[in-house]
Amino acid sequence: MRHVLSALVENKAGVLSRVTGLISRRGFNIESLSVGPTEDPSLSRVTAVVMADEVAYEQITKQLHKLISVHKITDLTDEGAIERELALIKVNVDAAHRSELIEIASIFRAKIVDVGAHSLTIEATGDESKLAGLEDLLRPYGIKELVRTGKIALSRSTHE
Amino acid sequence: MRHVLSALVENKAGVLSRVTGLISRRGFNIESLSVGPTEDPSLSRVTAVVMADEVAYEQITKQLHKLISVHKITDLTDEGAIERELALIKVNVDAAHRSELIEIASIFRAKIVDVGAHSLTIEATGDESKLAGLEDLLRPYGIKELVRTGKIALSRSTHE
Repeated sequence: MRHVLSALVENKAGVLSRVTGLISRRGFNIESLSVGPTEDPSLSRVTAVVMADEVAYEQITKQLHKLISVHKITDLTDEGAIERELALIKVNVDAAHRSELIEIASIFRAKIVDVGAHSLTIEATGDESKLAGLEDLLRPYGIKELVRTGKIALSRSTHE
Repeated sequence: MRHVLSALVENKAGVLSRVTGLISRRGFNIESLSVGPTEDPSLSRVTAVVMADEVAYEQITKQLHKLISVHKITDLTDEGAIERELALIKVNVDAAHRSELIEIASIFRAKIVDVGAHSLTIEATGDESKLAGLEDLLRPYGIKELVRTGKIALSRSTHE
């Protein structure tokens, strides 16, 4: 089962590698990972998407709780959380087909962030399925480069 | 100096922890990290922001090149790359101040993605300084929760 794990950890050298080491030592692959600053400069927030069954996932979180540098762990899997990721996609395009691409971007509420003579770079946010849909439409033009952040998530206000 | 390192790595258990371990063993803190899927399902792209001087950074990349699971490393520090990150920010708000927040969001081309009786969640993308500016404006209302992806980057078309 796919789990979305959100953890507040101390922002210092070694903490991140201890967290990822602990998960992968058990043989679970981290599907996506995002680590960024929080309101408190001494803390970072780690959001990890991990495939694991219930028992294994519980073991992972128990082990993480034991690390002094891990302050709080939230499981955002089941609560219908707001999930988002960001993608930058550089697509091959000549002047003749540029307007088609601009139209696709606008349908997906994506932004054109760079234009060159033979390519165009699109910035898009959304959940996994929205970004997959956009990629499907762009693929025929030729995707030159694609980079995606890991997923981030927050609980919905209605769940408070 | 702040370096933006982009690496294509094999998408399997343990690779990520080897990469983060290698960086942090040398005592360098990873300021932000993003790991996400690429066009090739067998590969993930890691984008890491690391503070290190030139000599140390060169050592890190040399060591990374030695890992079989690391396919390609790009340094996106100097090329005026397109840098973006994504933030979800949940802000305290009552009905009377909601329109003020919606206005701030619109100035920053951010999206309102959830509204509750006492809070509102904003999705924003941009470079570090844009997101910091938005946070500054939202702070007086009371930021309940904030989660940010690590930075991702792509080279500009003009640099090709």
